[in-house]
Parts: sequence; structure tokens; C-alpha cells
Amino acid sequence: MSFESLDALRALLADMPGPDQSALAGAEERNGQLTKPPGALGRLEDLAQWYAGWRGDVRPSIDAPQVIVFAGNHGVAARGVSAFPPEVTVQMVANFEHGGAAINQLAKAFGARMDVVPLDLDTPTADFTKGPAMTEAEGVAALRAGWDAVAEDADLLVVGEMGIGNTTSAAAIAAKLFGGDAAEWTGRGTGVEGDALAFKTQVVADGLGLHKAATDGLDVLMRLGGRELAGMVGAMARARSLRIPVIMDGFICTAAAGCLAKTQEGALDHVVAGHQSAEAAHGRMLEALGKAPLLSLGLRLGEGSGAALAIGVLKGAIACHSGMATFAEAGVSDG
Amino acid sequence: MSFESLDALRALLADMPGPDQSALAGAEERNGQLTKPPGALGRLEDLAQWYAGWRGDVRPSIDAPQVIVFAGNHGVAARGVSAFPPEVTVQMVANFEHGGAAINQLAKAFGARMDVVPLDLDTPTADFTKGPAMTEAEGVAALRAGWDAVAEDADLLVVGEMGIGNTTSAAAIAAKLFGGDAAEWTGRGTGVEGDALAFKTQVVADGLGLHKAATDGLDVLMRLGGRELAGMVGAMARARSLRIPVIMDGFICTAAAGCLAKTQEGALDHVVAGHQSAEAAHGRMLEALGKAPLLSLGLRLGEGSGAALAIGVLKGAIACHSGMATFAEAGVSDG
Repeated sequence: MSFESLDALRALLADMPGPDQSALAGAEERNGQLTKPPGALGRLEDLAQWYAGWRGDVRPSIDAPQVIVFAGNHGVAARGVSAFPPEVTVQMVANFEHGGAAINQLAKAFGARMDVVPLDLDTPTADFTKGPAMTEAEGVAALRAGWDAVAEDADLLVVGEMGIGNTTSAAAIAAKLFGGDAAEWTGRGTGVEGDALAFKTQVVADGLGLHKAATDGLDVLMRLGGRELAGMVGAMARARSLRIPVIMDGFICTAAAGCLAKTQEGALDHVVAGHQSAEAAHGRMLEALGKAPLLSLGLRLGEGSGAALAIGVLKGAIACHSGMATFAEAGVSDG
Repeated sequence: MSFESLDALRALLADMPGPDQSALAGAEERNGQLTKPPGALGRLEDLAQWYAGWRGDVRPSIDAPQVIVFAGNHGVAARGVSAFPPEVTVQMVANFEHGGAAINQLAKAFGARMDVVPLDLDTPTADFTKGPAMTEAEGVAALRAGWDAVAEDADLLVVGEMGIGNTTSAAAIAAKLFGGDAAEWTGRGTGVEGDALAFKTQVVADGLGLHKAATDGLDVLMRLGGRELAGMVGAMARARSLRIPVIMDGFICTAAAGCLAKTQEGALDHVVAGHQSAEAAHGRMLEALGKAPLLSLGLRLGEGSGAALAIGVLKGAIACHSGMATFAEAGVSDG
């Protein structure tokens, strides 16, 4: 199962599976019998039931999480919108491959396999202030790379990204998908401020001005996105087709997820927000998608780092749900 | 090293070690060289440096976390302040010992050893509305049980508790330590509401009225606390003497920690707040202690559960700090 065009992907998205209702109901019943006051594990209880539903298993476990980091280069980076030069993208890919980045440590700490998918780093996307960032052929290739990168036996997915210039792209996408002007969505990224931030905001505004005709989320992705954003979109879609729950990362990952949500209603039902980034507009983006973050620790690194950290929270939730004794098993009075 | 009286413990608390300044400085320097934009890992960076300082190691690891759950019975529970009957304390201790409780699953998920310390469950403390909950001899015995329960080779400590009636005790302690009336600090606990909550609030108010003469935090602990709270106080103090960092749990654990803070300034410098509980006044209690929680997921179970979940966050922070490549090692341009 794959796709040759954006329309073919749209058709796939319109026909994706939902959670297993029987497993959901069974998990809810089990939750009510565990040795704790009702609701005392808070969001861990909701998370465990959500996960059980998607995995179709009343007492699931998390044994094979996968982290995929997509990398791409942005034409708009040549305008100087980032605090770092564009060559850092390829340097960081080497760092991922050698195990030296933050995401490598977090994937290892939470028992996840990690895959790195560099996407045509020698060929940046077009500058979105001059035309669409990607042709349909380029975009579909990146979407398919994401789709194909998901391990069929994974039981949890984190997608992350690296791409100098990509908070500029994500800000433009968010403004286009959710409304509002460039200044509301443009933030410091890796560390721009003052005149540089004003310039970055103008670049986003220029992109919005040029792409008024955008239609759905996938069209916005082609016009304002980048290959690593498309890779994340493809991977999140593939995870849905395989009923693999996804933990969403920060600003750029959430912008990519927004492209899915604005293409097909309910397309993020298998997705939970791992964290709220320090990038100023991320909170508003999560609100627009109706996703409450699991963590809020001031991270703004990307790479999938905040989501990978949240694997620990989800593992804790599943450990409690699937491992605890019931009142009857433990001989504890239930109030 | 131990103590035979509250005054002897006070003397020990006045002479506790601080963090290793050289390790702190080395960790700060290392943090600035890691392959990420400055500050991009947010609170994980602060956590890693804090932990490095206390462990006296520029590149520490977490290999031996310990979770200790203290259990005690409260005279005030006989008044019916809880949604659960007092016999649940001993039933839950059996559940801890057989591995069936939430804290067992979380300790296992994050690689922690777990110890259970039941404290004279057959002899509840006195009803604090009629007199001091504990004599000095009783309190010192519980404090010493906590002190002695800490493994000398642990490199991280979580203390938790079980004790039907202990949110009533913790609310009274908080009101006494931090000011304000009973209603501001009394909450739902395991699930009381309506008239039962009003009654619980009155019990707290009665205790406050009787114990106006309380002096420092340890005196408040004797008058309004319970054995499991004293156990946590003793264990947190012992951890300080061994330079073992502590993750603090929810409402009851934080009330116990407050007794330390109000006995000796700086006594919680080795303590970080694991989470903010759903118990209404916990946020105010954390503010009074100047501790920002790592997690806020609506937990209100006790047992050390929220703190144990936060072990994952701290492990992630240390994994990044100690495992990441520097810009020089990875050949990445640093902006």
C-alpha cells in the first residue's frame, strides 16, 4: 500500500482505521478495577486506554518504539533566517548517525530504535517566498520516504526533524492552516532575535502573501513546507494505517501534523502531544489541534527530543495499566 | 551517624553538605559545548547540572535509583476523614510487597529498587485534634526508620507513602507551616466531597486550633504528622547527608519536605519536585517551597508515583548531558 500522487494519499487518508472499540471498552473496565482510587492516576489512565484501543489489546505493552529523524534543507535558509548556517543540517545528520545528538541519547534511554532519513540534502527546497517550496513529485517522494520508514512491527512512533530554516517554514504553515498573521507564529527558533527576528517574520509574511491560493493541508505542505516535514507527515499517516500510536514533538512536527489534520478530519486521533516547546507559538498550535501536551519543560531542540522524553510517560502509564493488581486480586477494600 | 532526639537531628540538619562546586562548574562548561543551540534542552539542562553537582561528577549516570514507600496509620482516620477505611493501609502494604501497586510498576519501569517500610501499623498515631499525633520517642523512631532505609549506594531517591487519613494530616501541616486557614489546604484526598469534605476541613481546623504553640518544622511534624511522614523526612535528610538527590512526590511528601525546610534553611536544595498533584492545594505548597514541578499530569495517588514517573525525565536529562557529543567532537558549526 502506498501512493503515487497527493490525491492518492488523500484517498488513503479518507479510509484509515480507527481504534479497536472492544479493546477500548475492555481497557476502561480494567482501569476501574485497579488498586487505586478512581482517577488517581490522572492522565496516565486516559493515555493507557487510548493506547490499548489503538493497539487492540486490553493489556498492552510497549516493546518496540521507533524514533525516526527526517532531515531536509530549505531554500529559505539562504535568506539568513536562522542563527545557524545551512551546512549544520548535514553536519547534524552525521552526528545522528554517529550517535552523538540529544535524540540518540533519549532514544537509547527509553529503549527505542532510531532511524535517520536524510532527504536530498544537496537539493534544498525552493525559497517559498518565490514559489512553491516543492513540486508535487518532490513532495510525494518525501511523503513516501516517510511512509516507508515506519517499521511495521513498531508499537509506538516518534518522528523528529532537523533542517536549518524549518521554524520559518513551520511558522508559515501554521499561519496558513490556523489563521493569524506572520508575527503571531514566528519565533526565535534556534536563537534569532531583534532585527533578525523581524526579518524572519517578514519572510514568513512574504510566503503567506504569495500562497493565498493554498487549498488543503497537503497543498500548504507543498507550498510552504520542506522535505523533512513531508517525511513526518508520511510517517504519521503510515503509523495510522498500521494502528501505531504516535507521540508528536514540538513546533515543526506539530506544523506537519497540522497539515494532516487540515487534510482529513480525525487524522490525528492516533497522535498525542509529547510536549509543549519553548517556541512561543507552539502552545497556540497545540490548542488549535486540541492536543494537551504531556510535558512542558522548555525544550526547543526538535529532533523528536520532547516526544522521545514523553515515551517514558507513556511507558509508565502502560506499566501501571497492564501490571497493577485489581482490588479482587490484591484483597484490597475498594472504598 | 544517626540521632537519638529531635535536637540531635536538628544539629545534623544544620551541618549537612552542599553540592560539589567544582562538578557544578564542570557540568555547566560541558553543557555549553554540547551539539545543540544554547538552552535548547530547557529544564533538562538545569536538572543535569544540579544532579552533577550533588553527585560530584561532571558526567554522571543514574544506575541505582531507590524508591522507598513508608506506611503509617493515623488516629484521625477513625474520625472518617477518608473515602477509604483505615484497614486499607495494611492491605495496600501487602499489595506493595506482592508487586501489585502502581508504584511497583513505575519503579520497575524506571529501573529502581523498591523498599516498603510499614511503621507500627497496629498502633495508629494519636488523633491530632486531641493532642500531639506522636510523642518525641515515637517520632524519632519513625524518623530513624526513614534515615536507615536509604541505601548508601543509591544515586537517586524517591520517597512515597501510604496512610489512610494522611491528606488530612498533610493539610494541617501545610496550614501550620505556610499560613492560611484549613479550607485553603484541605482537599479531596482519595475522593471526599460535599459534607465529608466540610467535615475533613473542620478536623484540620480543630488540629490547628489545638497546636498553635508549634515551633519549627519538626515540632509541627510531631504534632500533626504521622509515622510515614516522619519516615519520609528521615529519608530525605539521610539522602542529603549522602549527597543523594531526591525527587519529591505529591501533597503528603511535599508537606513532609516542608517540615524539613521549616526546620533548616536550604534543607531541600538536593530535592526537586517530581510533579504537581491534582490535590488542589499542592500547587500552592510547591510555590511556598519555591519548587517548580517536572510533571503535571493530574496524578493524586501518592505512593511516590508521580516522583517515580519523573525518574524518566531525570534519566533523559542525564543521558543527554553525559552522552551527547560536543561541537568539536562532532564537527558541527556552533552558530
